[in-house]
Amino acid sequence: MLNVISVPEAAALSARISKKITRTELLPLAALPGRIAAEDVFCAEEIPLFCRSVMDGYAVIAADTFGAGEALPSDLKLLGEVRMGEKTDLAVTPGTCVKISTGGMLPAGSDAVVPVEFTDLDFDTCLVYRAVSPWENVTRIGDDARKNSVLFHAGDRFTPASVGVLAAAGIERCRVFGRVRVGILSTGNEVVPVSDVPVCGKIRDVNSALLSALCGSYGCETHFYGIVPDDEQKLKEALSLVSAGNDIVLLSGGSSAGEKDLTAKVLAEIGEVLAHGIAMKPGKPTVIGIVKDVPVFGLPGHPAACYFVAEALVKPCVAAAVGYVPPARKVTAVLCDNISSNHGREEWICVRLQDGKAYPVFAKSGVVSQLSVADGYMRVPRDCEGIAAGTAVEITLF
Amino acid sequence: MLNVISVPEAAALSARISKKITRTELLPLAALPGRIAAEDVFCAEEIPLFCRSVMDGYAVIAADTFGAGEALPSDLKLLGEVRMGEKTDLAVTPGTCVKISTGGMLPAGSDAVVPVEFTDLDFDTCLVYRAVSPWENVTRIGDDARKNSVLFHAGDRFTPASVGVLAAAGIERCRVFGRVRVGILSTGNEVVPVSDVPVCGKIRDVNSALLSALCGSYGCETHFYGIVPDDEQKLKEALSLVSAGNDIVLLSGGSSAGEKDLTAKVLAEIGEVLAHGIAMKPGKPTVIGIVKDVPVFGLPGHPAACYFVAEALVKPCVAAAVGYVPPARKVTAVLCDNISSNHGREEWICVRLQDGKAYPVFAKSGVVSQLSVADGYMRVPRDCEGIAAGTAVEITLF
Repeated sequence: MLNVISVPEAAALSARISKKITRTELLPLAALPGRIAAEDVFCAEEIPLFCRSVMDGYAVIAADTFGAGEALPSDLKLLGEVRMGEKTDLAVTPGTCVKISTGGMLPAGSDAVVPVEFTDLDFDTCLVYRAVSPWENVTRIGDDARKNSVLFHAGDRFTPASVGVLAAAGIERCRVFGRVRVGILSTGNEVVPVSDVPVCGKIRDVNSALLSALCGSYGCETHFYGIVPDDEQKLKEALSLVSAGNDIVLLSGGSSAGEKDLTAKVLAEIGEVLAHGIAMKPGKPTVIGIVKDVPVFGLPGHPAACYFVAEALVKPCVAAAVGYVPPARKVTAVLCDNISSNHGREEWICVRLQDGKAYPVFAKSGVVSQLSVADGYMRVPRDCEGIAAGTAVEITLF
Repeated sequence: MLNVISVPEAAALSARISKKITRTELLPLAALPGRIAAEDVFCAEEIPLFCRSVMDGYAVIAADTFGAGEALPSDLKLLGEVRMGEKTDLAVTPGTCVKISTGGMLPAGSDAVVPVEFTDLDFDTCLVYRAVSPWENVTRIGDDARKNSVLFHAGDRFTPASVGVLAAAGIERCRVFGRVRVGILSTGNEVVPVSDVPVCGKIRDVNSALLSALCGSYGCETHFYGIVPDDEQKLKEALSLVSAGNDIVLLSGGSSAGEKDLTAKVLAEIGEVLAHGIAMKPGKPTVIGIVKDVPVFGLPGHPAACYFVAEALVKPCVAAAVGYVPPARKVTAVLCDNISSNHGREEWICVRLQDGKAYPVFAKSGVVSQLSVADGYMRVPRDCEGIAAGTAVEITLF
């Protein structure tokens, strides 16, 4: 019998043995969303570099408008207009004003902008019907960001919104942590490439494609190292090679007890087995270990089990390596079938959603098509005695 | 004054004028997640192609176990073992059995598998302590998927889980709809490339970078066509060029009324203006139109406003074009400041999250750094009289 540990214990173990990524790369703005800043990002200049109007109106000296109102407007002499994107030679002096557009650079001497809707123009005299205070309707030098201020801290995750801030600061590329490299190895004499027809006891290498897509959704780069037969020496060599070049190694393919034992045996010889067996259904025969300092997961052969164990264990390992994985989407729905006790193992069940209701997909062990019938999965905790139809349950969407 | 329409009206308009994507491309499995099937995907063969054991145990004739129990086991002669991934020459006849592993191909004659834990082996005699019914613990030919069955329908969205199903069916690439092509054009004499220092009234082209990243997060491919000065003829030529090669055109840059008017004027001349002005704060001066059958959005110059209007209008337009955009992540949090009435415009406000609480980020118009300070935004409906601190609000995360 396997010495099983609980799913939370296994997830914590997976995070603990994770290899923190220290590689960095310099990426252009468009490639930044979803990536993690590897260093603080400083603003090299004041933003804006000049005082800017936030309204269409007239640049004035605020004091010239004090006391102005509907009944008694201030009248200011119009000296001319600020052209967009240009510095004007005009200077506002007491009793004068200059026309300005949103985004325009304030002329010398002015310290506020009166919005056009509170003015009337009478030839070259501007009547101001409302007082403005100094710097009203103006973005001052450095108001948006100060020179040498930190725009993003190391460890921050960049978003599309961040890209706008970086562009505003004139920053065209940023240093981010590298993606987690996941090496994928299939095992089993019966496993054939996807392009083969699996006759006479053979089975296609479903899990390599599945894990590659799934780890891609975690933000990893994945590398596939082929199918290794059930041969101790060959598995040992392959595992050494893959662990040397990756941050995480995933082994999958075989579903028989013998194959699982071989994975654990080889892992024990060139590294260390940290857990063999998880109180999870499906997914029990999972092996967790390390080779040198690289986490190795021996995943179940059945695709749905492989998917669930990757979600349960590989995802927290990736998250710990780089500080972030894109969060899963979850919905709450009303369960439409009773789910019976799970006998001491946390159970993960494929679920189909329809009209806000959750229908468990009961499928024979090893059936892959449940993954296309279902919209996601639900988790039934280890100590749960079963869940009655009508209960609201949380579904993680595929 | 602009003739404004409401945000829901504008969003519905944006979806209605969307150009449905009919281009398709053939992609390998790893590139499928998030893409939309352009045609039904059929299973070309039975899955599995042979009867397969779902247990480690013994392949038997079920009838031989009927009546077996703890007290009175059936005893069956062991003929040998099925090797993984191979077809055995052994045939099970009444009174005999063959050892089999999970995933193994059932030998001729057998119709069930007794799990190893319900057996004892006494030399070449297998004692069976539990009856199995026909096909128990067996996946039969086609149980997982039938030949010619539809695995995915046109319009379905592929997920990492789908990739597993496709791999199992031996399908290595699928035809999906092309990405939405978004052409981005900046306008304004004052707009300079991100690499320039924006002195004397100039402003960096923040929005092209922002929109490119944001539309990338919607699953679009984006193409940047440079900065066009405020010149009617040049804008006309650029808009004709960009609309001819893209599914959606985004114009942004200028923030003054004059620049907005120029966009609307040019759009009216070579196409049609469908809306000018949205009851949205910020974002009011937005222009929606079409050139030939291509939707064109004239977006606000201020980056936060540009971001919000893209979320409000461009996103539904993309969603309608391809049937899907990755859904935004939303959280609910308790508002920590009063928000006053929005005076008849739907208001979008940047929000910082801390300890599950939502702090509105009150920033001067046009300030881009609010996008790095905030974690997301909240929407205050048009007819809302204000929201009191302590209210639970929905935040869309960046």
